[in-house]
Amino acid sequence: MTTVPEKDRLHAQITFAVEIDKLKRIIRRNLLMDGSRRENDAEHSWYVSMLAMVFAEHAPPGTDIQRVVAMLMVHDLVEIDAGDTFVHDAVAVAAQAEAERAAADRIFALLPADQAAGLRQLWEEFEARETPEARFARALDRFAPLLANHNTQGGTWPLFKVTADQVMRNVRLIEEGSPSLGAYAIDLVRRSVSMGYLPE
Amino acid sequence: MTTVPEKDRLHAQITFAVEIDKLKRIIRRNLLMDGSRRENDAEHSWYVSMLAMVFAEHAPPGTDIQRVVAMLMVHDLVEIDAGDTFVHDAVAVAAQAEAERAAADRIFALLPADQAAGLRQLWEEFEARETPEARFARALDRFAPLLANHNTQGGTWPLFKVTADQVMRNVRLIEEGSPSLGAYAIDLVRRSVSMGYLPE
Ligand SMILES: [Ca+2]
Repeated sequence: MTTVPEKDRLHAQITFAVEIDKLKRIIRRNLLMDGSRRENDAEHSWYVSMLAMVFAEHAPPGTDIQRVVAMLMVHDLVEIDAGDTFVHDAVAVAAQAEAERAAADRIFALLPADQAAGLRQLWEEFEARETPEARFARALDRFAPLLANHNTQGGTWPLFKVTADQVMRNVRLIEEGSPSLGAYAIDLVRRSVSMGYLPE
Repeated sequence: MTTVPEKDRLHAQITFAVEIDKLKRIIRRNLLMDGSRRENDAEHSWYVSMLAMVFAEHAPPGTDIQRVVAMLMVHDLVEIDAGDTFVHDAVAVAAQAEAERAAADRIFALLPADQAAGLRQLWEEFEARETPEARFARALDRFAPLLANHNTQGGTWPLFKVTADQVMRNVRLIEEGSPSLGAYAIDLVRRSVSMGYLPE
């Protein structure tokens, strides 16, 4: 077995650091809370990681919140190559899986092998949605744009012709990760409908 | 002692979550790595938190990296009220301290008291720069814009008339938190000077 010299490790880490800066240029569907512009993936990743700390007590007992934070930090890195997928576009969601896997193969491999494996595992865990950590992370990933759309008079819901039924299907993913945030999300959707932000 | 009802806790957490969205609108001095625009505080916070994971082995042995990540996630929240301070403007840096303290008083207090105390302590620890975690966090906070400026032919260094001497003073903060990243940073500054990105 050969050991990678320390200088090569640092060089690989720097290459990865320069590469992931691109996440700041991947634009999402939802707006900032002041409606001024659309959000990008890097600030979204920060935001949902903060929500993991803020809403920690709404995760099932025993959930490893630091793992949730790490998962949310890396969960969108594959979009550097694969782009953002609109959650309400079922065809795009299916085609996306392959593109994201290829992106993971390329991007994580920029790191030294041991680190690449660690970050890739976080991403795979997030995608598989089998652990409480992954389900809570996914809940926050869905909760954040709901909160943004509700706080911007519907935000981009009308533009993308989103209905209450579609949003309610997303709320199921919030409930799966956090019953109390799920209940609050249902309330937000109802209020959005009654305020005319979201067609029934 | 009275207990805050759960519904009030959730309400306070939602209020804080809506408030911190504003960090996405605080603009920093440095550019993205492609030079397309200036970076904002939210995407910067994500970026340096990612660097903590990527460069973990460059922290002193025993450094609690998950605490470094949490610290970096919250380290700029006070700038929602106080704005970004240019590190090379000594007068502004001094005046900033009071404004940031007032901002901390307002923003963290939106959370339930136990959570407010926890996040405030992370921020105070970052500012005090006494623990290995705070020193490593600060090193990454200084390393990121150096990397961005070097990768954008000097970025905003010429615009703000920054010299190699000033950048080298910043490199001392990187060395304090991580000798190996400090050594790499010195090399980056030298290469920036020799490439004409930075006047001596
Ligand atoms: Ca700052």
